[in-house]
Amino acid sequence: MKIVLATRNPGKIVELRRILDGMTVVGLDAYPQIEDVAETGLTFAENALLKAHAVAQGSGLPAVADDSGLCVDALNGMPGIFSARWSGRHGDDDANLDLLLAQVSDVPDAHRQAHFACTAALALPTGEEWTAEGAIHGSLIRARRGTNGFGYDPIFVPDGDSRTTAELDPDEKDAISHRGKAFRALAEIISQVLVTSP
Amino acid sequence: MKIVLATRNPGKIVELRRILDGMTVVGLDAYPQIEDVAETGLTFAENALLKAHAVAQGSGLPAVADDSGLCVDALNGMPGIFSARWSGRHGDDDANLDLLLAQVSDVPDAHRQAHFACTAALALPTGEEWTAEGAIHGSLIRARRGTNGFGYDPIFVPDGDSRTTAELDPDEKDAISHRGKAFRALAEIISQVLVTSP
Repeated sequence: MKIVLATRNPGKIVELRRILDGMTVVGLDAYPQIEDVAETGLTFAENALLKAHAVAQGSGLPAVADDSGLCVDALNGMPGIFSARWSGRHGDDDANLDLLLAQVSDVPDAHRQAHFACTAALALPTGEEWTAEGAIHGSLIRARRGTNGFGYDPIFVPDGDSRTTAELDPDEKDAISHRGKAFRALAEIISQVLVTSP
Repeated sequence: MKIVLATRNPGKIVELRRILDGMTVVGLDAYPQIEDVAETGLTFAENALLKAHAVAQGSGLPAVADDSGLCVDALNGMPGIFSARWSGRHGDDDANLDLLLAQVSDVPDAHRQAHFACTAALALPTGEEWTAEGAIHGSLIRARRGTNGFGYDPIFVPDGDSRTTAELDPDEKDAISHRGKAFRALAEIISQVLVTSP
């Protein structure tokens, strides 16, 4: 069972290969002719589907994409779909994290709730599509801790834990993370769809 | 009738002196001993009142403050109360505007609606307080136009106009702006309060 992961983000590829265990997952690097699609959607689901459809059409294979982000209560749910480009520099984790910390520096500890959200999408070359969602709730600290994960992991402490998601082992993180939840749900859909599809 | 404007923002002082015509308005520069208050509120009203009360207490005079911002629909209403510190550098108009433009660069023209909002607050040394609100609706363009105003004016086009608020004459802007509306409403309250107060 071969599927294409519609991402060039190395952190995401490593994480998703662990979660989609047992499937042959090919990164977008194997398809240099497929151009990056502009993320013009206004929701995680819209952007995940945009990316999955573009890669399914370009590769002729089932394609999986996700759109994920950190939703900060004090910022009305932002950075949200803009998480990876929050600083204006797409994929610059350090710049995005530094900017977010500076923006919420005056927000008191009692109001620093946030959640990571993920929508995972599957698209077939036929145009059929499915999505699954996951979330993890917690709060923001004021300085980085931990070196695992990527993105905003070093400043996010899940509810009920004292460690940031960058201080969790990868397996530990997968078990509770927004992306783990969304992709486990999508993996079940994938199994059913790709077994019953021609 | 003497009141203190709780701001060190030169652009705001000029604008508010025009609007609060007929009153002796003193800027915060006349009170170097009053320290800037951290804007820990989560709404325009909370921050405007925080600033007005701090200055009324520190100066012993009626104090007026505002909190204003640009609320972008595609950003769930952000930058909002964070407008002046969006880039993490408080009051750096250029950095804030560049960041916002980069963040919404993928947002299609049909979804670039935004509004400026303002809450103006009056506080007396006795602790009494009043607020008034104003808003102006429009949409965001993709590159600066105009040199009047400040903040995000060069990229905001009010509904029904083709010019940015940075291309309007100051008087024209006051007549329709969020801050003009809020401060004209507050000016009426001020007249009544300060005439009837001891």
